[in-house]
Amino acid sequence: MTIYKAPLDDQRFALFDVLGAEAVLTGLKGGEGHTRDLLDAVLEEAGKLAEQVLAPTNWPGDVEGCRYDKATRTVTTPKGFKEAFDQFAGGGWAGLTMSEAYGGQALPAVLGTATTEMFQSGNLAWSLYPLLSEGACHAMEMHGEEWQRERFMKPIVEGRWTGTMCLTEPQAGSDLGLLKTRAEPAGKGLHDADTYTISGTKIFISAGEHDLTENIVHLVLARLPGAPAGSRGISLFIVPKFKLNADGSLGERNGAAAGAIEHKMGIKGSATCVMNFDGAEGYLIGPPHKGLAAMFTMMNAARLAVGVQGLALAERALQNSLNYARERLQSRALSGTKFPDKPADNLLVQPDVRRMLLTQRAFVEGSRLLVLYNALQTDIEARATDPAARQKAGELAAFLIPISKGVVTELAIECTKEALQIYGGHGYIGENGMEQFARDARITTLYEGTTGIQAADLLGRKILQLQGVGFKHFLEEISAFCQQHSADTALRSLIGPLAVYAKQWGDMTIKLAQGVQANPEELGAAATDYLYYSGYVTLAYLWVRSVVAAEAGVQSAAFKQAKRDTASFYFARILPRCLMHQAAIEAGVGSLPEIV
Amino acid sequence: MTIYKAPLDDQRFALFDVLGAEAVLTGLKGGEGHTRDLLDAVLEEAGKLAEQVLAPTNWPGDVEGCRYDKATRTVTTPKGFKEAFDQFAGGGWAGLTMSEAYGGQALPAVLGTATTEMFQSGNLAWSLYPLLSEGACHAMEMHGEEWQRERFMKPIVEGRWTGTMCLTEPQAGSDLGLLKTRAEPAGKGLHDADTYTISGTKIFISAGEHDLTENIVHLVLARLPGAPAGSRGISLFIVPKFKLNADGSLGERNGAAAGAIEHKMGIKGSATCVMNFDGAEGYLIGPPHKGLAAMFTMMNAARLAVGVQGLALAERALQNSLNYARERLQSRALSGTKFPDKPADNLLVQPDVRRMLLTQRAFVEGSRLLVLYNALQTDIEARATDPAARQKAGELAAFLIPISKGVVTELAIECTKEALQIYGGHGYIGENGMEQFARDARITTLYEGTTGIQAADLLGRKILQLQGVGFKHFLEEISAFCQQHSADTALRSLIGPLAVYAKQWGDMTIKLAQGVQANPEELGAAATDYLYYSGYVTLAYLWVRSVVAAEAGVQSAAFKQAKRDTASFYFARILPRCLMHQAAIEAGVGSLPEIV
Repeated sequence: MTIYKAPLDDQRFALFDVLGAEAVLTGLKGGEGHTRDLLDAVLEEAGKLAEQVLAPTNWPGDVEGCRYDKATRTVTTPKGFKEAFDQFAGGGWAGLTMSEAYGGQALPAVLGTATTEMFQSGNLAWSLYPLLSEGACHAMEMHGEEWQRERFMKPIVEGRWTGTMCLTEPQAGSDLGLLKTRAEPAGKGLHDADTYTISGTKIFISAGEHDLTENIVHLVLARLPGAPAGSRGISLFIVPKFKLNADGSLGERNGAAAGAIEHKMGIKGSATCVMNFDGAEGYLIGPPHKGLAAMFTMMNAARLAVGVQGLALAERALQNSLNYARERLQSRALSGTKFPDKPADNLLVQPDVRRMLLTQRAFVEGSRLLVLYNALQTDIEARATDPAARQKAGELAAFLIPISKGVVTELAIECTKEALQIYGGHGYIGENGMEQFARDARITTLYEGTTGIQAADLLGRKILQLQGVGFKHFLEEISAFCQQHSADTALRSLIGPLAVYAKQWGDMTIKLAQGVQANPEELGAAATDYLYYSGYVTLAYLWVRSVVAAEAGVQSAAFKQAKRDTASFYFARILPRCLMHQAAIEAGVGSLPEIV
Repeated sequence: MTIYKAPLDDQRFALFDVLGAEAVLTGLKGGEGHTRDLLDAVLEEAGKLAEQVLAPTNWPGDVEGCRYDKATRTVTTPKGFKEAFDQFAGGGWAGLTMSEAYGGQALPAVLGTATTEMFQSGNLAWSLYPLLSEGACHAMEMHGEEWQRERFMKPIVEGRWTGTMCLTEPQAGSDLGLLKTRAEPAGKGLHDADTYTISGTKIFISAGEHDLTENIVHLVLARLPGAPAGSRGISLFIVPKFKLNADGSLGERNGAAAGAIEHKMGIKGSATCVMNFDGAEGYLIGPPHKGLAAMFTMMNAARLAVGVQGLALAERALQNSLNYARERLQSRALSGTKFPDKPADNLLVQPDVRRMLLTQRAFVEGSRLLVLYNALQTDIEARATDPAARQKAGELAAFLIPISKGVVTELAIECTKEALQIYGGHGYIGENGMEQFARDARITTLYEGTTGIQAADLLGRKILQLQGVGFKHFLEEISAFCQQHSADTALRSLIGPLAVYAKQWGDMTIKLAQGVQANPEELGAAATDYLYYSGYVTLAYLWVRSVVAAEAGVQSAAFKQAKRDTASFYFARILPRCLMHQAAIEAGVGSLPEIV
């Protein structure tokens, strides 16, 4: 069995000491009450739920998995999932960041990111049920009509129902333009609104069917009659599992049901459904043929949340592998016995084990800063009083999303691998829990867009299409930071390389843009290595900020020393990975010849 | 479901074109008949067994797993495993490389390596049953007495029984000096030999119990009364599942039985047993207290075999991901539509997908050359007529083993990850088979010594303790090769960097040796990065040899082009990984401060 302790100290350090979140948040519209005290209290409560309620269900949920009953087309979630959901709903967590108008608490996204990290560390598979709900609510909030929000969103915010996002079809994955699900006009329904008959098959639908709540609201992409081909002919529909009566109470069963659940490598407690829509009744949300755009507005939040999943798994894997390295006695230190009264020294005396632990720590704590920084920009984007500040934050956030998603999840695969490796053969055994983290982490580089898709989004869209507006803000910020601390001799070994890598990042980007102009294939040849390069430099910047903040903070000497040590480790042994990515980028598309 | 086609063309290319195996093998003692024709025929038969009999059992075996019956303490292997084993035994495969004196065919180890690759690609979990037998036979052949070989080894060679190696205990993993199993003298037994009563618990015993054969021969490490503490007080014992009557027929059940099987991340068809020895009857093999030395003589073969497992899984994962990339239609090429008559282009048009495929191909084909080269050295070591040639080959082989094991398995994790990634979300689904390869591959960096253990073996033992004799041979070989081809302008872009990296490898090693002399902890701080560095340079050398051999060979133009392309890719995008490993090595132990 594995341990989990909510990393409140590091979250507080990241939020308040490094990012100065209190000053930022209380200065936003409606943020007067978002003080450190309030946020602290929320974090503590979330930590308790994660540690005490969710964490114990994680491994049993993996072993038990979800069960599908063919006769009733229903899914039974693992033992404890419903109880955990009830506590989650009862605590008001479903509406934490949702509008007060629909029963939410309108707390900042950055706080939601921190609490979500803990819930996901507790039980990633379970956390997908509320996560998908969030996406559905955002879509309805941004694109729905008032009556739709009243009828379909509010019960989700209240934790009585959940939501899904039904995009993928067997032939349409990364390329949603290929989707075939149809929507036919079919008379009037609730609120005298037009209804549509939805028919088609969706796959990989997380939380498509379950026993946690009495109803499920599916948001479904489908084509209206005569819609343009490709991605410009897709509309978005609300399709509830149970139709509603005029008063909002549950009516008859709709023609939307799970046809099967997938047997997956991990997140076995999450019901990944094949959804059959057999003439299901649905309501159009947003304008016709603009469904993909509506979906994309939710995509950023969903992608950031998946990045947080990587962080969450890596955090718990780190806690356990550190614990194991401390307790496991095997062999002696290379320079002689350290624990003479024990039959052997612990694993921590081995430099190679410390290398694996520091790698994890550098990625976990760096990733935490990255996702919180990213989330904070979305808060500023949403609620700053100054429109220019809103725009800048939005551009920064959009730029960082593919890094938060693409890089943090890949590093999480590496972290969970190293954590398992520290256990040796014991890491391969189910009941020790480490292999589950590795299996669960493996989904995070696949869903909500693979790493290749994130890389293309970063380089193709955020950098090239949008002329790198967000990137420029970020480079300016790094440059100003380096300037500001240029006289600090204690930081010289960090600031120096950071400035060099940041400059190279900019130079390389300009060169790449020219290369892509000459040959669009260069984009694909460079994108993934460019994504990694961007990630490593971004984390380097955040690590130096951590060192600066720790120096000024009130944390213990050991906490500060750990931050300095980890930053030094990162600069010495991780940041040089940029060298190989640079070589790969410079190799260009000529190094990737045709394969037949 | 996944495909598998025995990679006979590439195996033949590696064996005959690159390594010149026919000339080498037919020049060895007893090797007159080991012609290309003979080897070819054996490869073809092994390929058929792997493709037709083993490959179809792989995924079903993973889903079904092994079942343990507590009442009888027996294990049921998945459907088809026994039938496959019967065909394997019937075909004489169990004795392929074993002495003719005990019923084997005394064929070269390098041939055994190639056939084993295919069996492991077919079904890794299944392949562990005969693999462990091989280790047990080698131990008995090298350290046992004649009557022991007649009674216990011969039935294994004939495929009637299997063997195990019982080393690990709960408190004794990498550090076998901590083991506690006891052996007490207990009168006379078979052949009037001394017997011992073995008591203790062993864990992680592959094939410790199963239903494939009528008897199992356990080789067990245990302590005699009054044995010195630590690793110098360990003896090796033969402990059969069923005792033998004087005529060799099966007698009564011995006190050695499985107490449980582990539920693991992968290789679920392999029974990984907790073995309880409750006063079991055993026979000492080799001298008292020298058991660990006896085990270590087998270790090289076992480690090489695990390296081959990595290769085997990566090969099959590559075949499937290439196939998928060819058939999956999704999106259009960056430079415009390539398949106008299809709803979308295939994945192969995406440079990023080709990057993932070429990474796999570079590692798979390079790893194949490495393990075959390594195995060929063991053949020369065993049977060259010139003692100096034997010694040199032995030193080369020993030097390469930790690279073959440590690096090939780590690269296999990367390959199976990339192969899964190409499938996107579909890679996460069990029935598509890719996630099984990733799970199965994960064991290879753990058992027979973790990657950290391989790294310590390479740098600590093979380089520093043994004054790098094998390393010197290898560097001289690379240097001579570079010299020989220095005038070949077509090779310049490969030979140049190879010579530079090889020189740097040597220089860095000398510097490291000095550093370790000053502080032994530097060994642990550098070892894993040094292992990778060594692996990447080794593969670079073998890739240039491939290009040279392909140029001179009779293969198709497409085959030759693929070799050139993959070598260029490797040099452009993979070999620069050495830069980051060098930086990490140079960072030294100061970058890995204490963690408490």
